[in-house]
Amino acid sequence: MAGAQIFPSRRLRATPFSRRVEAAGVSGYTVYNHMLLPTVFQGLAEDYHHLKKYAQIWDVSAERQVQLKGPDAHKLACMMSARDLRNAQPGRCYYAPICNENGGLLNDPVALCIAEDTYWFSIADSDLLHWAAGLAQGMGLDVEVTEPDVSPLAIQGPMAEDLLVDVFGPKIRDIKFFRFASFPFKGRMLNIARSGWSKQGGFEIYLDDSSLGLDLWDAIAEKGEPYNLRAGCPNLIERIESGLFGYGNDMTIEDTPLEVGLDKYCALDNDAEFIGKEALLRQRKEGIQKKLMGLTILGNQLEPVSVPLACLHSGSKVGIVTSGVYSPDLDANIAFAMLDKSVCVPGTEIEVRTSGNIQMATVCEISSFETLA
Amino acid sequence: MAGAQIFPSRRLRATPFSRRVEAAGVSGYTVYNHMLLPTVFQGLAEDYHHLKKYAQIWDVSAERQVQLKGPDAHKLACMMSARDLRNAQPGRCYYAPICNENGGLLNDPVALCIAEDTYWFSIADSDLLHWAAGLAQGMGLDVEVTEPDVSPLAIQGPMAEDLLVDVFGPKIRDIKFFRFASFPFKGRMLNIARSGWSKQGGFEIYLDDSSLGLDLWDAIAEKGEPYNLRAGCPNLIERIESGLFGYGNDMTIEDTPLEVGLDKYCALDNDAEFIGKEALLRQRKEGIQKKLMGLTILGNQLEPVSVPLACLHSGSKVGIVTSGVYSPDLDANIAFAMLDKSVCVPGTEIEVRTSGNIQMATVCEISSFETLA
Repeated sequence: MAGAQIFPSRRLRATPFSRRVEAAGVSGYTVYNHMLLPTVFQGLAEDYHHLKKYAQIWDVSAERQVQLKGPDAHKLACMMSARDLRNAQPGRCYYAPICNENGGLLNDPVALCIAEDTYWFSIADSDLLHWAAGLAQGMGLDVEVTEPDVSPLAIQGPMAEDLLVDVFGPKIRDIKFFRFASFPFKGRMLNIARSGWSKQGGFEIYLDDSSLGLDLWDAIAEKGEPYNLRAGCPNLIERIESGLFGYGNDMTIEDTPLEVGLDKYCALDNDAEFIGKEALLRQRKEGIQKKLMGLTILGNQLEPVSVPLACLHSGSKVGIVTSGVYSPDLDANIAFAMLDKSVCVPGTEIEVRTSGNIQMATVCEISSFETLA
Repeated sequence: MAGAQIFPSRRLRATPFSRRVEAAGVSGYTVYNHMLLPTVFQGLAEDYHHLKKYAQIWDVSAERQVQLKGPDAHKLACMMSARDLRNAQPGRCYYAPICNENGGLLNDPVALCIAEDTYWFSIADSDLLHWAAGLAQGMGLDVEVTEPDVSPLAIQGPMAEDLLVDVFGPKIRDIKFFRFASFPFKGRMLNIARSGWSKQGGFEIYLDDSSLGLDLWDAIAEKGEPYNLRAGCPNLIERIESGLFGYGNDMTIEDTPLEVGLDKYCALDNDAEFIGKEALLRQRKEGIQKKLMGLTILGNQLEPVSVPLACLHSGSKVGIVTSGVYSPDLDANIAFAMLDKSVCVPGTEIEVRTSGNIQMATVCEISSFETLA
């Protein structure tokens, strides 16, 4: 798709921050939850180097919220989530894989417990709203399932904390990882969580009034100079380096949480009930047949992988590369691959079919890219 | 978003025809059901003039199928659809609005009755799969809800029929509008329907084996010369001219079928049961407060509308333009707008706020653009 432009329509929703994103010179977009999500500003590598040193402001409005509210909200949240939410506490975030009855992944949101009767599922790219609403309807639950006017704005990078202290005050430092607290802004109270889709540290501000989008962006930008603040976005190189795999790219409805190493987020050893539990228990007993692994790929520098690349071992296909790119800091091609269990031992050498070439590759654990530095 | 490129990833799925689409010089894409859908080849106006004269081949794989299969497939199809499907016949297509319990539109697919126990819902841009699966799960129905390997390829334009006769034989002519029949291709039987997202006539071929994608494209392209066949795609100008409104652009979950003039596709006057029926009956009784209408907009030629434009009347906001563009054949700016009922009388003059300007506009019925020619 070299050279093809994205064609504008209302169906690719703009965000409360779009005008600032455009003004900042966004050069690449993806579409995520029917909404524009920036992917590149100055260049993949330029954005990456900057993110690892300074602070960036990210329009991640496309992380839409599925709100469950009402007497049965807690019950529905528990039924939907492989993560045990029975003792969920307000003010906490929970990474929560969502499965269908076969254990296939439907989404992997962060669930925010807003109140005892209110949850937000901050979703990856699929209409989890429809699943939650269909389930609630079919089960006859007393709960409202909606997409509220909430648009997250992330501040990421090693200088993110100092910047937000300048904007919201020193209590920002008290927010622990995967917790959130409320901060006043223009007469509203905004939930701010220590979270975000990088490993460089940072926060997500859950703006719940679109009309304040530009004001919020500007209030942060005003304090940005000491931190060399720039507009940015989730960065392909940084996320692979950091072992952050993504729904739709690295796992789909064809994969289970066990196959992507999310075992510890699945309540399989207690009496929590959730959809897909039986299938996951069966799979755990029988053993998984494939697993998401890391790969380092020798040879030519890899272009960002847009279509799954075939993986071969002894002439047989043993899986696919799901995401991959060249990392400047590691001076290596790094990738995620869904591989047959026969080659899931770290150190195993396989081949990857890139455009016209065969390149040698070595299997590794996903967490181990950082050790290459 | 002038100039921003679409950034490739596995999450924006390629199709069985993508290689031919790229080779044909696609210049614009949208993302639709997590899949690439071409929007422009040579130019909006060039594509439009060609579509109205000759034959075009369209990769509409993004019209994914939600397959319901099993003993309760018929029951689930009926519960989901505002259209009365109780007497659905194999070989027929049914335009079927899908509502939530508030009557809000979730999708507006074409439902194909494949067999008594098998339906395909050929969907617009939302994960109807999730709604259907959640509902089936919640209701405890005995039905499999899946996205099968089916990728529609459309042949559209006044010469589409003659072209397909050359490829599949004269029985193509016997297919009535919104019916389908099976035709052999490379050892498979492919469903071919007389349907498609233009008013220029044509067919949709439901390819159910991705590995045959390039062969199918090539088999049609080989016979294309007498019909001046080119690669094309749903065209913004043609679709507005033809009164084809689209889910996500011209109607959303905030709108009901009655508000977009789909009354005749809703089983409100018999004892069919479906989700949202009570809400729609109530709305019909109380009267709708807004409606999707047509607009002709005076003044400067309109760029394709990408963000809803405000509509004003006597200084008050009375709605939004949802899609709009300049039509060369009509030499007019034509648009769809969701308007307050106070201005829904054809002939009413309102104002539209375009980038920096106020342009006068006249309300019309959606079906009446053709009469402007």
